[in-house]
Amino acid sequence: MTEQNAAAEAAAEQQSTPEKGAGRSGLSRRGMLGLAGAAVGAGVVGFGAGAAVGHAVASSATGATYPFYGANQAGIVTPVQDRLHFAAFDVAQSLDRAGLIELLQDWTVAAARMTQGRPAGKYGPASGPVDAPPDDTGEALDLPPGGLTLTFGFGPTLFTAADGTDRFGLAGKRPAALVDLPRFPGDALLDTLTGGDLCVQACSEDPQVAVHAIRNLSRIAFGRAAIRWSQLGFGRTSSTSRSQTTARNLFGFKDGTANIKAEDPKVVDAQVWADAADGAAWMHGGSYLVARKIRMVIETWDRQQLGEQERIIGRDKGEGAPLSGGTEFSDPNFLALSPTGGTKIDPDAHVRLAHPTMNDGAQLLRRGYNFVDGNDELGRLNAGLFFIAFQRDPRKQFIPIQNRLARNDAMNEYVKHVGSAVFAVPPGAREGSYVGAGLFA
Amino acid sequence: MTEQNAAAEAAAEQQSTPEKGAGRSGLSRRGMLGLAGAAVGAGVVGFGAGAAVGHAVASSATGATYPFYGANQAGIVTPVQDRLHFAAFDVAQSLDRAGLIELLQDWTVAAARMTQGRPAGKYGPASGPVDAPPDDTGEALDLPPGGLTLTFGFGPTLFTAADGTDRFGLAGKRPAALVDLPRFPGDALLDTLTGGDLCVQACSEDPQVAVHAIRNLSRIAFGRAAIRWSQLGFGRTSSTSRSQTTARNLFGFKDGTANIKAEDPKVVDAQVWADAADGAAWMHGGSYLVARKIRMVIETWDRQQLGEQERIIGRDKGEGAPLSGGTEFSDPNFLALSPTGGTKIDPDAHVRLAHPTMNDGAQLLRRGYNFVDGNDELGRLNAGLFFIAFQRDPRKQFIPIQNRLARNDAMNEYVKHVGSAVFAVPPGAREGSYVGAGLFA
Repeated sequence: MTEQNAAAEAAAEQQSTPEKGAGRSGLSRRGMLGLAGAAVGAGVVGFGAGAAVGHAVASSATGATYPFYGANQAGIVTPVQDRLHFAAFDVAQSLDRAGLIELLQDWTVAAARMTQGRPAGKYGPASGPVDAPPDDTGEALDLPPGGLTLTFGFGPTLFTAADGTDRFGLAGKRPAALVDLPRFPGDALLDTLTGGDLCVQACSEDPQVAVHAIRNLSRIAFGRAAIRWSQLGFGRTSSTSRSQTTARNLFGFKDGTANIKAEDPKVVDAQVWADAADGAAWMHGGSYLVARKIRMVIETWDRQQLGEQERIIGRDKGEGAPLSGGTEFSDPNFLALSPTGGTKIDPDAHVRLAHPTMNDGAQLLRRGYNFVDGNDELGRLNAGLFFIAFQRDPRKQFIPIQNRLARNDAMNEYVKHVGSAVFAVPPGAREGSYVGAGLFA
Repeated sequence: MTEQNAAAEAAAEQQSTPEKGAGRSGLSRRGMLGLAGAAVGAGVVGFGAGAAVGHAVASSATGATYPFYGANQAGIVTPVQDRLHFAAFDVAQSLDRAGLIELLQDWTVAAARMTQGRPAGKYGPASGPVDAPPDDTGEALDLPPGGLTLTFGFGPTLFTAADGTDRFGLAGKRPAALVDLPRFPGDALLDTLTGGDLCVQACSEDPQVAVHAIRNLSRIAFGRAAIRWSQLGFGRTSSTSRSQTTARNLFGFKDGTANIKAEDPKVVDAQVWADAADGAAWMHGGSYLVARKIRMVIETWDRQQLGEQERIIGRDKGEGAPLSGGTEFSDPNFLALSPTGGTKIDPDAHVRLAHPTMNDGAQLLRRGYNFVDGNDELGRLNAGLFFIAFQRDPRKQFIPIQNRLARNDAMNEYVKHVGSAVFAVPPGAREGSYVGAGLFA
């Protein structure tokens, strides 16, 4: 059995695992990749210019894989996949520094495997000993890799616990940029949707692939860390590449038109990646993730006039062009005057208050998702935007922008921030090392 | 403005709406369909035999459309789409018979439009008067039709209210097959996840398209009916066509191998479609939908040995073959003896107890979905199977099968039924008429 498993593992390393249970076609999950990739290629050809139909292309891009190891973690400037499973974890009281390192090592190994379309553990869901639990839960066995990325982060409480103790000897390593977020005007945060010692962002074109990843990381963490809160999302509301179209949020408007794009490396360097010179050398090549669960009062919004909806956003609903004119990607002209008085874009329009020119040039790389979590007791959909933003320094980016929005945004009548968290996202791991190794060096 | 809108509507009727706001490519949602369809075709060619990779093909089939009008409602024998938004509605106390008919008429018109990739109303999200709320909420504006089907059903309480009153004069029309489901052993039903006067099953390859449909039907019902409970699902756990592969549930096993397939019309006629001779003439060509929200205790399952998992299901985990041998589609041999004693397939294995030969030949057309609704306070994923089954008569199909499973199934240790509902799903509407018209004739 051991030899057999060793052989299977060796085969897996060559990424052509002929595993039992890989489907009646005899194709392994990995073997399918080639075919899926071929289909994606065919799909793009079929569509002509991919940009016009980014959403559809994205949802057929189930064969894509992204490298796990590298200078930066994947899942930040990676073209936003269409589905999300995000989980914040709290570590167990009993966990010590060595245990935390071991957990990160175990997570790294499993993440490196799963992002390449392989099972979470070396035996997989169905090829191990019958008298042991499988080291993969199996629901992704026949599925293509789905463009899976797994992105890990460290919350403020990992450095200093809520009771002030320095559980892991990390207090001195806490980056100055990893501040506790202030209370913003109108915040209605629930403790059960807020904070967390660790986070994992799983993005994929296939929700089952994202769910499988979070589930297996949670399984691996058993007894060492447990999910504090989690969120499923669909319909990415931002694009991080010019190859993608702008998607729509549940207000029905295009969202993220002016998002940071991977094709602008200077902007990415200035606004997204932390630098050793920022103060925490171990965060060089990392970033800071802010998550906000924003419930939308969609039933009230849906009864609002079209003209008022457009006034609140500052863009037209169909094309997404600023109300000052042009097309979706035209720069808004905040000085353009309306014939009926005032400016064409209202002083409290969302597009104005969120715009870099109103925020000392600060920008965010957004990777948010729409969510619907069933309905409330009044029959209203519990729906909204799970906002995720990456940035170099929340003190200069998210916090001042959100302070401005929270005070003045005309949209505030229709949104409620119910969850919040901030994480230091370390640089990517080197092969043979683990995510966050620099923190423990 | 009126003329302009009338012209826009006329253009929409010809399905080439040049609507404002249809994306910077200038393609309308409808116009994109042709392109998406082409890509799907290319995808299938790229994959070779579609059956080996049904999941991937399905998730790129975002351009498909299914007719709304017809002898049967779509969304029953239609090849199962990969995403679900299901909603049960309760009608308002104030609604009378004429109001109920009007609601069904309004829903029919909107459903016929949305399933063809058009906005819910004639103006759409961005082309109507600026001083009125849009008649479509907009988040599906740039998306392909996504193979959307909308399937409507009537719960027992529509015929006889919980307090025994005959609100709509329908008590005499209640089909004998539309029984209240009995309490099954082990049931842990929550009232907030159970029952409903009406239901809508929205299935699509794109969750945003399914969510958009339920949201707009809920918006249209405002003041007349409100969502009682709702459920999002992903990763269809059954196939209803031989063109689809078998998908996996969150136990990691293939689910629905022996499901009824559309390619077997005799079985479909015998097991799925109600007949006038069954007692309710207005249900001829309809069916009965049973929904069960089944929470899986996946953390406990994941710590169970592989051999025990396979014993409980009665199939091997990789291939999905019955433990009596063969391949996935081999018939289980319940008499085959194990060299270690007893039968190869245990007496309480799920596959044995659910098999037609153990249930007087009764079968179900299953269209269930996996779900993850965040996590509970212990950090366990709130996950499981949202079971949906269509059948000709629940008294002869779901109820006896579930009674047998609830008493004896080895799987019961790992599942908990927390929600339940049954609906009479009327036949399809004729063009110009509305869903369920026969009930009011």
